Parts: sequence; structure tokens; C-alpha cells
Amino acid sequence: VTRCLLVLTEGAGDPITAKTGVNLLRYCPDECVAVLDSTNVGKTAQQVLGVGGNTPVVGSVADAPTANTLLIGTAPSGGKLPPVMRKHVLDAVAKGLNILSGLHDFLSDDAEIAAAARKSGSKIHDVRKNDEHEVSHRKNIREECLRIHTVGNDCSVGKMVVSLEVARALNKRRHDAKFVATGQTGIMIEGDGCPIDCVVSDFVNGAAERLVLANQHHEIILVEGQGSLVQPRYSGVTLGLLHGCIPDGLIFCYEAKREKVHNMNWMTIPPLRSVMKIYEDMANAMHPCRIIGIGVNTRLCTAAEAEAEKKRVAREFGLPVCDVIRDGPDVLVDAVLDFQKVLGKGKS
Amino acid sequence: VTRCLLVLTEGAGDPITAKTGVNLLRYCPDECVAVLDSTNVGKTAQQVLGVGGNTPVVGSVADAPTANTLLIGTAPSGGKLPPVMRKHVLDAVAKGLNILSGLHDFLSDDAEIAAAARKSGSKIHDVRKNDEHEVSHRKNIREECLRIHTVGNDCSVGKMVVSLEVARALNKRRHDAKFVATGQTGIMIEGDGCPIDCVVSDFVNGAAERLVLANQHHEIILVEGQGSLVQPRYSGVTLGLLHGCIPDGLIFCYEAKREKVHNMNWMTIPPLRSVMKIYEDMANAMHPCRIIGIGVNTRLCTAAEAEAEKKRVAREFGLPVCDVIRDGPDVLVDAVLDFQKVLGKGKS
Repeated sequence: VTRCLLVLTEGAGDPITAKTGVNLLRYCPDECVAVLDSTNVGKTAQQVLGVGGNTPVVGSVADAPTANTLLIGTAPSGGKLPPVMRKHVLDAVAKGLNILSGLHDFLSDDAEIAAAARKSGSKIHDVRKNDEHEVSHRKNIREECLRIHTVGNDCSVGKMVVSLEVARALNKRRHDAKFVATGQTGIMIEGDGCPIDCVVSDFVNGAAERLVLANQHHEIILVEGQGSLVQPRYSGVTLGLLHGCIPDGLIFCYEAKREKVHNMNWMTIPPLRSVMKIYEDMANAMHPCRIIGIGVNTRLCTAAEAEAEKKRVAREFGLPVCDVIRDGPDVLVDAVLDFQKVLGKGKS
Repeated sequence: VTRCLLVLTEGAGDPITAKTGVNLLRYCPDECVAVLDSTNVGKTAQQVLGVGGNTPVVGSVADAPTANTLLIGTAPSGGKLPPVMRKHVLDAVAKGLNILSGLHDFLSDDAEIAAAARKSGSKIHDVRKNDEHEVSHRKNIREECLRIHTVGNDCSVGKMVVSLEVARALNKRRHDAKFVATGQTGIMIEGDGCPIDCVVSDFVNGAAERLVLANQHHEIILVEGQGSLVQPRYSGVTLGLLHGCIPDGLIFCYEAKREKVHNMNWMTIPPLRSVMKIYEDMANAMHPCRIIGIGVNTRLCTAAEAEAEKKRVAREFGLPVCDVIRDGPDVLVDAVLDFQKVLGKGKS
């Protein structure tokens, strides 16, 4: 059965709060039948979220009769379902729609929602639910596989988008590249992966290593990063993932003009140079690794500002730089393939 | 009701595998009535584990009639209950003893054990069970409280012991110091704390911050470290805790003569200097912090070797060094109080 997704982004006007919905609209457009947001009824997804073309915005589950799955399209800090969205979920379940959720608060554990689902036959898929329970072993790593990992100076800067764009572009150039999802949105798009930020902390490094073991038959893997080593809330997740996936190379991602930590505007993000050094130091504590390129997110910039930013950063760090959305990912794809050659990995 | 502990360390001859049991015998001696280890019946705890004096080693639950609680005294990698110990647990539950466990595999979720406990009235306390679900906020931190955090170059090097010894010695000198437990053994000894390695990874930094908020009314807190920033398995836990507890000063712990990573003898631990630098760099990414002293575990050394090691390390790093078990913690207590003065915290 094909997924026919009703993308719930109720009231979320910006593409960061609604990043799960935005990215499903961007990468799985054929599966999205409508956006559910009662504050923007009658508009298009493009008008409200900047992606999704003419996908209509509807105000209730009843207004999207072809949908068979309600997708929770926002990822609030802390992962809880906002009360305003609860009614939409209960409406969907009552109509027999399946629920696809990446929240930390598992909807299948919610007594009211679970009871309604039993009654209607809805399936509730909590993407973050996992039973990872294995530590890292550092054995049987296939060194011929090139491991690239996206990292950043904050969360929600575009690590998943860069990983996905580079992997898809490598595939177009006939390389066997695989996007390895580590967050709820990536898993929803790719259909596999591990919700690393919801793994019991003792097993984060092990879960990341298991992603490598499961995917290293590919020529190149692009492992989606999480959080940031300098993110006050999520740095533990970031380091466990960084060490567990044993990257050969990193693509460093950041958003131009962001100065304050996501959702913590009373805290300042350290300078790019010091953050990049921290990543290389921490990665090299486990395995030789360096930053091979920079993915800048210039969504807050004019075209001229974006060009100036890329020029400045390329000169400062001597690395290839692009905005994969604005420019396409070719600059980073070339960087990955050059690096593969330098390391002597893959087909020569 | 007082705890009368039967300490289960079945077959674990070394003080690392049996570290939970060893430390309960060391820090709660009046509560330990016997050790349960059918491979060492008739010996004393001191003979088998090197602590515990004349506490007898018995071969079955029936041989410790005064016990009211069976304490799981080992912490196997991965946290699963070894099959050989299962019979002892079921015997204890059948006799109505409570169970105190720090395993990742919750005994209260084990159908057979849970059913037996319902029948006998035993209470099963899984120390690692938690519902931490709050991110870090970095607000309302009381800067007058001095935050000291123990860190190390591997797990099982003595971070908990150093934290506890320094806190108790500060108390003896009439300072209001608090040992803040972050692991199962520390929680069993202290009676409170957070099992940080079993928290969902997104909430590790937040859980550590909550420990600070809950304890910062004290003059000095000694926050127990977990794992190591260079531990391939547990580095994510370590960084989340390091960033979450926002330390002013670190006490760096290591075991002399240990060259290979705990339970991963195919991996080498990096040199002390580079590990110490990594800790200072990572801590300072969040809050000004430095290493103020070194706790060396010299259990594998002769007295002469221990002296030489301390001299060498003190000279190399220009820091106070001691083995809190061999020498007592006074050198580190002085270092904490000197540092408190330098920062101008506490009573002048």
C-alpha cells in the first residue's frame, strides 16, 4: 500500500519548527496529498512552508479524504505533542488513518490514542521507538567503504539535507552511495535508519556502529549528523554518533547569520573555526578524519549575501563550500569523490 | 527498615567486574551481611574482593538468613544478567528478599522474576530505571556553588571513588559538600542521583543539569563522571554529562599501568596529555573550566611504583596527584579548597 500522507504542521510557519513536514514535502512529494494547518486553510504548501508546490493546506482531517496516513510534521524541542495537535491526531485515528510520528512521547503509549487506534484499526508508527542495546565493538569494519558524516555548529542547520542531496547526486553519477538516516525525518524519507537521539545513552556509540555494519557493503555512506558538539542540549548525542560511525571525512554544516543557539537565544554559538577544530580533534581521537567540505545554509541570505558568504568561508578555511539547496550539491559531491581517491578507497 | 544486603558477585574475582559489590562493601559496610558467590564459599569478602573484612562469602541465599535485600554486585558490559546469577535472584525473590539491581535489563520487566515477586511480596528496585525527559536550559545556575566533576581516560578507573572520598573528606573538614551520583553504584551508596548512562540520549545533558539544579544549594558538589571522552563505547554519555553539569573544575582520574581500553584490549588508550587536553577543550566550549588535580588508581602497582608514578605525573602536569585509596584524599581536598578560593566562591 502506498503512503498517502497528510502532513500535520498546525500553526508552524517556519521551516525549522516544521522541518519534518518540510522535508517530506521536499523529498517525498508524490506521497504528500495535503498539509494540515487550520491557521492557513486555502493556501498552498509553497506559500506557507516554502516547499511543496501546489499541495493544498486543509483545516481538518475530513478535508483530505485521500490520505491514509497522518504524519506529525513538527519536531518540538523535548519531543512532546502540543495540545492543539492532539485533536487532529484523534480525528485521524477515528477515521482509520495510520499515524507516523517522530515525537519522543510515543503516541502508541498514549492511552487515549492507543485505545482509539485499537478501535479503528489505525496503525501507530513511532519512528523514535527502538530497542538498541548493543555496545560498540570496533570489529569487522570494511575499510573499503568510505564513511562521510555530516556535522554542524548547531541543530537544524541542514545536516540531513546535505547528506541526502550528496547521496542522491552520487547515485545519479552511478556511485553506490547510501544515505544513512539517524533522525526521525531521515528515517521517514529513507525508510530505514536509527533514531539515535532516542537510544539509551550507553548504547548510542554502539547503535551508530551498527548503522555502519549494516550499510558498509555500499561504496560510500553518508551518515546524517545530529545536534552539535557545542550544542548545550544535545552534544552527548553528537559525540556518541561521531565516535560510533568512525567517519573518514566530515562535511561541516552551518546556517549563515545564525549567532544564537537554536531555541536558546541566551547562548551564543562559538566561532566556526573553533567548532571545526573541536570536531577534527574529537573524531581523530578515534580514527583519522578531516573536514572535506562545508555545507552552508543561506536561507536567511539574499543571493548576493550568499555568494559573499561562500567566498569568505572558502577562503578562510581552504575548503569547498556550497548551499545544496541554492546551488545543488555538486561541489560537495566532487569533494567526496576527490577524498575517496586520496584515501585509495572504492574502485580506482 | 534497614537494608541488610546480600551482595551477589557470583564468580567475579576481580574488583572491576564486581565493582558495585566492592564499593557497597567499602562504603556501606554496616549494611552488608554476606557476599553470595558459590565459587568462593567459606572465604571472607576481604580474601575474594580485597574489601569487606570478615564479611562471609556464602553459596546460596538460604545461607544468609538475616539478609532482606539481594544486591546485584556486578555490572557486566551491556548490562545483562548472566544466566548463572538468575537462579540466585529467583531464590531470593522466592524467600521474599527485595532486589536491588543496576542492570540495563530491568529485572522488574522480566516476566518470570516479576511474577515471582508479586507472589512473594519482594520489591524489585531497578536503579537504572528513569524517566528523564527534560532538555538543558542553562538558567538559574547558582554560581556560588563550586562544581567539581571527576573525569577519566577510561571507564572503571575510580571516578566514583574519588568523588565520594573527596566529598566525605570535605564534610569531615566541615564543608557542605555533596557527592552527586550518576551511576548505579553511587546511587545505591548515596541513596539519590541519576543513572545517566540509561537516560535517553537527547536528555542526558538535561538530566545532568537537573542534578546541578537539585544540589546547588550545597557549597561544593562532586559530580561523579561516567566513561571517558576517548572511550569508544561510552563517549557520548561522558560528553553529555560533562556539558550538562557545567563544571568549574575537573579531577582527572586514571589507572596506572592500564594501556588498553576496558573490555576492548584491541584498542589502545591515548596518552594522558592528549586526553586531558580534550577534556579541557570540550569543557571550555561551554563554561570556563580546568583540571585541578589528578586521582591515580595504583591498585596494580607496588608501593614504590605508586610513589614513582605520582611523582612523574605531578611533575609532568604540575598538578596535585594522589591515590585516594592508598594515600587518602587530602591532596585533592586541598586542591578543591584552593580552587574554591581562587574562584572566590563559597565563604571567603
